[in-house]
Amino acid sequence: MSSHAILLLSCPDQPGIVAQVSNFIHRNRGNIVDLDEHVDKAENVFFMRLEWELNGFLIPREALDAAVNDLARPYSPLQCALHFTDIRPRAAIFVSRDSHCLYDLLARHEGGELEMEIPLIVSNHEDLRRVADRFEIPYHVFAVNGRDKAQQEAAELRLLRQHRVDTVILARYMQILSSQFVEEMPNQVINIHHSFLPAFVGARPYHQAYDRGVKIVGATSHYVTADLDEGPIIAQDVMAVTHQDTVADLVRKGKDLEKVVLARAVWAHVRRRVLTYRNKTVVFQ
Amino acid sequence: MSSHAILLLSCPDQPGIVAQVSNFIHRNRGNIVDLDEHVDKAENVFFMRLEWELNGFLIPREALDAAVNDLARPYSPLQCALHFTDIRPRAAIFVSRDSHCLYDLLARHEGGELEMEIPLIVSNHEDLRRVADRFEIPYHVFAVNGRDKAQQEAAELRLLRQHRVDTVILARYMQILSSQFVEEMPNQVINIHHSFLPAFVGARPYHQAYDRGVKIVGATSHYVTADLDEGPIIAQDVMAVTHQDTVADLVRKGKDLEKVVLARAVWAHVRRRVLTYRNKTVVFQ
Amino acid sequence: MSSHAILLLSCPDQPGIVAQVSNFIHRNRGNIVDLDEHVDKAENVFFMRLEWELNGFLIPREALDAAVNDLARPYSPLQCALHFTDIRPRAAIFVSRDSHCLYDLLARHEGGELEMEIPLIVSNHEDLRRVADRFEIPYHVFAVNGRDKAQQEAAELRLLRQHRVDTVILARYMQILSSQFVEEMPNQVINIHHSFLPAFVGARPYHQAYDRGVKIVGATSHYVTADLDEGPIIAQDVMAVTHQDTVADLVRKGKDLEKVVLARAVWAHVRRRVLTYRNKTVVFQ
Amino acid sequence: MSSHAILLLSCPDQPGIVAQVSNFIHRNRGNIVDLDEHVDKAENVFFMRLEWELNGFLIPREALDAAVNDLARPYSPLQCALHFTDIRPRAAIFVSRDSHCLYDLLARHEGGELEMEIPLIVSNHEDLRRVADRFEIPYHVFAVNGRDKAQQEAAELRLLRQHRVDTVILARYMQILSSQFVEEMPNQVINIHHSFLPAFVGARPYHQAYDRGVKIVGATSHYVTADLDEGPIIAQDVMAVTHQDTVADLVRKGKDLEKVVLARAVWAHVRRRVLTYRNKTVVFQ
Repeated sequence: MSSHAILLLSCPDQPGIVAQVSNFIHRNRGNIVDLDEHVDKAENVFFMRLEWELNGFLIPREALDAAVNDLARPYSPLQCALHFTDIRPRAAIFVSRDSHCLYDLLARHEGGELEMEIPLIVSNHEDLRRVADRFEIPYHVFAVNGRDKAQQEAAELRLLRQHRVDTVILARYMQILSSQFVEEMPNQVINIHHSFLPAFVGARPYHQAYDRGVKIVGATSHYVTADLDEGPIIAQDVMAVTHQDTVADLVRKGKDLEKVVLARAVWAHVRRRVLTYRNKTVVFQ
Repeated sequence: MSSHAILLLSCPDQPGIVAQVSNFIHRNRGNIVDLDEHVDKAENVFFMRLEWELNGFLIPREALDAAVNDLARPYSPLQCALHFTDIRPRAAIFVSRDSHCLYDLLARHEGGELEMEIPLIVSNHEDLRRVADRFEIPYHVFAVNGRDKAQQEAAELRLLRQHRVDTVILARYMQILSSQFVEEMPNQVINIHHSFLPAFVGARPYHQAYDRGVKIVGATSHYVTADLDEGPIIAQDVMAVTHQDTVADLVRKGKDLEKVVLARAVWAHVRRRVLTYRNKTVVFQ
Repeated sequence: MSSHAILLLSCPDQPGIVAQVSNFIHRNRGNIVDLDEHVDKAENVFFMRLEWELNGFLIPREALDAAVNDLARPYSPLQCALHFTDIRPRAAIFVSRDSHCLYDLLARHEGGELEMEIPLIVSNHEDLRRVADRFEIPYHVFAVNGRDKAQQEAAELRLLRQHRVDTVILARYMQILSSQFVEEMPNQVINIHHSFLPAFVGARPYHQAYDRGVKIVGATSHYVTADLDEGPIIAQDVMAVTHQDTVADLVRKGKDLEKVVLARAVWAHVRRRVLTYRNKTVVFQ
Repeated sequence: MSSHAILLLSCPDQPGIVAQVSNFIHRNRGNIVDLDEHVDKAENVFFMRLEWELNGFLIPREALDAAVNDLARPYSPLQCALHFTDIRPRAAIFVSRDSHCLYDLLARHEGGELEMEIPLIVSNHEDLRRVADRFEIPYHVFAVNGRDKAQQEAAELRLLRQHRVDTVILARYMQILSSQFVEEMPNQVINIHHSFLPAFVGARPYHQAYDRGVKIVGATSHYVTADLDEGPIIAQDVMAVTHQDTVADLVRKGKDLEKVVLARAVWAHVRRRVLTYRNKTVVFQ
């Protein structure tokens, strides 16, 4: 399969953007394989994702960034990102003690569903080293405690940079990242929260759900921001529960939500299908 | 169809309750048509719903309450309620301007799905009088404003008493009932809130959901308590939404959730399938 | 609100269609309010729905059809339809004895959700005349039996033509339309089948579902073709059931699916959001 | 945790069964931890699952089978099975080339969710040996082709007997078992079929679903009988799809359904929560 270019673009809405951008691709003999767009009429913002084949495209890859910037300049203020499908995201998976999301991601990765590299796994516990070993992925433990959290995070960030990591997946990582850490990686840190946000933020959401007596529980995957559990939501799903379900049942059943919802969010992120604005996401299917 | 008796019972869990109660029915030649039970092991509370045919039952209806109390006394402290299927609940429907829940309830009622009487409809607006007229149900308007709310509620309660109303259905009634009103009718006032509680309590939940960028919206039916949107949840349901959905789309799609969820809660209430404890419900299917 | 034009178009996929069509609108000072497109890559078919404001548009309405045909001719073989939002669909609702779908459609219509006219209701039974009367819509009974079915359908079609009906909604109409009837109204007759098609075609699908012991039941809304229950599917939904559900429970719970799924399909049809091809639909949200 | 006994019982419904059975447990100082019952009124069949603590129970384990048979005899014809939670099911997992269900089961097993032994994995291909190796479970390949299928199945059955396997999990095993094989293990072979049965039986259900243009796809886990895809359904789930989903999308998204639905069925089976009758199941939650 030939490489594709993917352009993500958002700007104030105005007539003719789609026509102009798709004309640009056609003029340069690009074959568009996917074009998604969305207009938020309340905010007057235009969003676009364009994927085209690089094979036969007249503009060489190294000149493409400049060409795209020229093209998009009139639409300013805009956000614009250019990706190539043969340059795969490099993701670090952060875990604590629960293995279900980690196994799920690794199995999907091995099965070819998630087109990314996983150069390393980071944890605050030794527990899941055996899982990492089975898949032959380096496993780094940073036992975080109050005293040296800043230091540990600095070491983690050094390690991520060293491995050119551009995506962090918090796969039930039960440690709050500092805002310094998060701000180093805007819209690059994906978390799974085990509730239907904004219900039950914070600790022990299944206990909270049980105490409230809800008839449905959920899971939410979102980009991490400095505000805990408040970042842009990428994916959510829910399941029905009844008075018969104990907290242990919620925890058990909820794991299926967590791993599937996290994987959907990671898939969309890796496929460059997510744009963010105003603490929300546009997720092109 | 012969009449049935329905016994709802909750008490501290202990061995032998089911055996003793069902023996009592059999001994008196009752034919059990439904027996549901639940034990909350965390709280050590036992719940039971027992429905049996009165036809051929040895204990006459007028003596049954005393007999049941004798039977249940050893399990004290207990909550116990006895109902007969030929004594139907009498429900007042409270509405404001939106007609979808009202039409839905009236159509179900006419179709025989909801076995209750609807002696009257109450509103704070004239708008839906035409709907009431179509179904030939008296329509009473109490235009509430700050000054005379206490007076108006007192008048409403008098009217409810006069019609022997035992169930109030808030079918998108956009007026907060005072705690005095609510306390007159414990576990008898059923509301539909247009969000997946406890997310988005209070006003304009679809706007809140839109602003938060959730990927799923919901509706919640619950008994009303003095704490707004905090009462025991009877039924909930949700639907997926995307970045393409405007607030108007959420409002439109959400109506289907609201009417269906409210109707499910009313159905369970009317069938005497709901028990409450600790701000939660047991809903036997 | 000014009137809008809606263009539905499908043709073999080729580069530049979106650009050319949207250029055409902009050149003529049309403000695009919605543009949806889809490419079926397996079949190489392109689909588009374009909605724009007529206010200020340079081409007068009476010349638009010709202009659009000129524009679209190079993409032949194509299907192309032009609609105006101020010319509302005219729908006849066909019913038998169950009222839930009928009430639901009429309540939505009155609430402004379904932008169409309902000049008449047709039935093979007298039962639901009272519903029609309540909403003051003419109710026509054609008691169909084997002998005179052809005659009755001919009379029905005459009536539909007389009322300029362009959409027939089978709202639990329990009578099979002949292929002659159906072929008179291609992609204009919308049915609700009370199963998750293609499971349980034909009669008594809830009984079939019960006998098979499924854990989920569904409803399907589709365009009617000469092959019973085989037409293009517009909308489907499902709900979980258990071994506790009797056939009567399935029937009762299923009604909520039926009415909501049918209404979703009608909404999409009325909003000109449905295109068909190869016995399938494209439904733009 | 002390061991529990689990009694599964079904028989013609008659008054007093619950009372008599629960009296029997109490009389012998058993502490009931779970009692579920169901009556199929259409068929007049009673179903019961009773779980109680063996600690302190007066009847010794080796005499329990006889005591239960004495107790149940009057309810004949009955089906009755006695299990002990410290005697765990022994499951063989059968796979072909797709790894998602296998990984999912092994990860759940390691996490303690599935209380069973997995003495071996069987396949008709070498592909997934690496997965088995990672979890250190013996992997046996029986390359089946037309000529020697009977021989191969005989060898498989010998191997299963040798390992005292009582449960076979077909985790996307793409080979049809002969009726001889299946009849050796009634209600012991659990399959996952990648459609919402009874829709799309047989081969390539996602292709069938795509061609039919359904708006929802599903997965079904069922006990295997001699009739392909016709056995008693244990669990089902579905997800929405749109015209945008290609066959490849259905395959990818469907994997999440398949693994979760299969795991739910296996969980219920292993917890002895499934009873079968008339090609249907009762699944106690």
